[in-house]
Amino acid sequence: MTFAERLAASVAARGPTCVGLDPHLPLLPLAVDPQRRAETAAVVRDWSLGVVEAVAPHVAAIKPQVAFFEALGAPGVAALEVAVAAARRAGLVVILDAKRGDIGSTAEAYAQATLDDDGPLGADAVTLSPWLGPESLGPFLARMPQKGAFLLVRTSNPGAGAWQGGPEGVAGEVARWIAAQRQPGLGAVVGATVPAEAAAWRTLLPEAWFLVPGFGAQGGTLADLRALRSGPLLVNSSRGVLFPASGGPRERDWVAGVGRRAAAFAAELAALDSRSPAAS
Amino acid sequence: MTFAERLAASVAARGPTCVGLDPHLPLLPLAVDPQRRAETAAVVRDWSLGVVEAVAPHVAAIKPQVAFFEALGAPGVAALEVAVAAARRAGLVVILDAKRGDIGSTAEAYAQATLDDDGPLGADAVTLSPWLGPESLGPFLARMPQKGAFLLVRTSNPGAGAWQGGPEGVAGEVARWIAAQRQPGLGAVVGATVPAEAAAWRTLLPEAWFLVPGFGAQGGTLADLRALRSGPLLVNSSRGVLFPASGGPRERDWVAGVGRRAAAFAAELAALDSRSPAAS
Repeated sequence: MTFAERLAASVAARGPTCVGLDPHLPLLPLAVDPQRRAETAAVVRDWSLGVVEAVAPHVAAIKPQVAFFEALGAPGVAALEVAVAAARRAGLVVILDAKRGDIGSTAEAYAQATLDDDGPLGADAVTLSPWLGPESLGPFLARMPQKGAFLLVRTSNPGAGAWQGGPEGVAGEVARWIAAQRQPGLGAVVGATVPAEAAAWRTLLPEAWFLVPGFGAQGGTLADLRALRSGPLLVNSSRGVLFPASGGPRERDWVAGVGRRAAAFAAELAALDSRSPAAS
Repeated sequence: MTFAERLAASVAARGPTCVGLDPHLPLLPLAVDPQRRAETAAVVRDWSLGVVEAVAPHVAAIKPQVAFFEALGAPGVAALEVAVAAARRAGLVVILDAKRGDIGSTAEAYAQATLDDDGPLGADAVTLSPWLGPESLGPFLARMPQKGAFLLVRTSNPGAGAWQGGPEGVAGEVARWIAAQRQPGLGAVVGATVPAEAAAWRTLLPEAWFLVPGFGAQGGTLADLRALRSGPLLVNSSRGVLFPASGGPRERDWVAGVGRRAAAFAAELAALDSRSPAAS
């Protein structure tokens, strides 16, 4: 099966839901000392395995945020490798949130590092920054349709538009380039936080998979997603699922808590009734 | 000393020269099996230590390309940690070529991962992609002036201009934003391969450190650098120093070979007579 087929099947089974795997140390249910990186990495590894176990019955995909693992050095990267392997075994589609972007043999090395099944991670897909131009994407296109990538077209942060621009700017050119590739494994990151532009992005990319961050914690709502639902859609929630909203005392049974919140996220998104048009 | 002061001192002593640390496996002087990642990482670690030893007397800075290390997984990242520590001990300014770019707590995690002295690497500076907007650079600005960063303004690849644009486009806006920060630790990557634009970039950024890739192997020449030399300049060579041009049989005494080529690169750049204006 191709990446797009795997993702469509997973979304058909469990809804258009993705959970970020963001081991933000101050929020973890277990106390850690970031200075003791090997010990902290072991805690992050065990927490990641708990999250995979908790969310796998409820959501289509998981999106590990590599920065949090890299901040712990080599033991953190080893923990990421364990977490990705566990997520793949659990049947989750794994989208590595790495936002890589480089050229030539360096881009090839990033593709090996993130996607190759005989490499250290073998994720299903990776997020990519398009800043270095179309040629920087070649090694990732070469791995499609078996593997996938999501280009950062329009991110969900308030200042995203400063240099990305909107549908009429550089981000729009990136979107048009994606459409011209006619490659189902090549999707787009389009934030849920710019609802006024949502319809324009979907018009530019009627058939592309959209990975939509910014839902929930960053202010994106179900209503903001409706303009995107005419095409294939995967909506991400990170902190809203991983951690209790209260910020109160640490959860005693945190695996159950993550599971409850993942189920609630899936139920909320079910109201969108956008189960993968690509799978139909 | 601040990052800009450390870099200026190193350039004053050894010229405006930076060597990339790119363990491109097919070119290494020792045979490796990329499938055996731990063993390959040990070879890459030893090769990196040899390169540091060979180039330290001749050049101002070293620029490890993290993608090649990451392709080997956790053992590769451990090798990178060893190489960076050795380069710092040898007095080289270490610029991590990571091209990171993310937002919020994720950007903070990347800053910890790359720059913090109590983190895994503690490099002097890092390369950053500006695609996510000015706010993505906050955690790195917060670490200046002790640490530094080079924004990818205009890269050296042939297709760089597609979405970066030139001095009148988005890349120009990024350059103007850099100038407005008035932060000596914040530099720019400006490729040597677009000589027609060189004077315009220097006009936009008269006082910023330029990290210039593309010299030598990618076609940039001494003449292309002259328009940039009115401000502080660091010129990078990677394969031209690391590996013999012939592509013939592997060098027997490869440490001596790297040292000879680093000395030749330094001698060539000495003709530019651009020893750090910032240090004068």
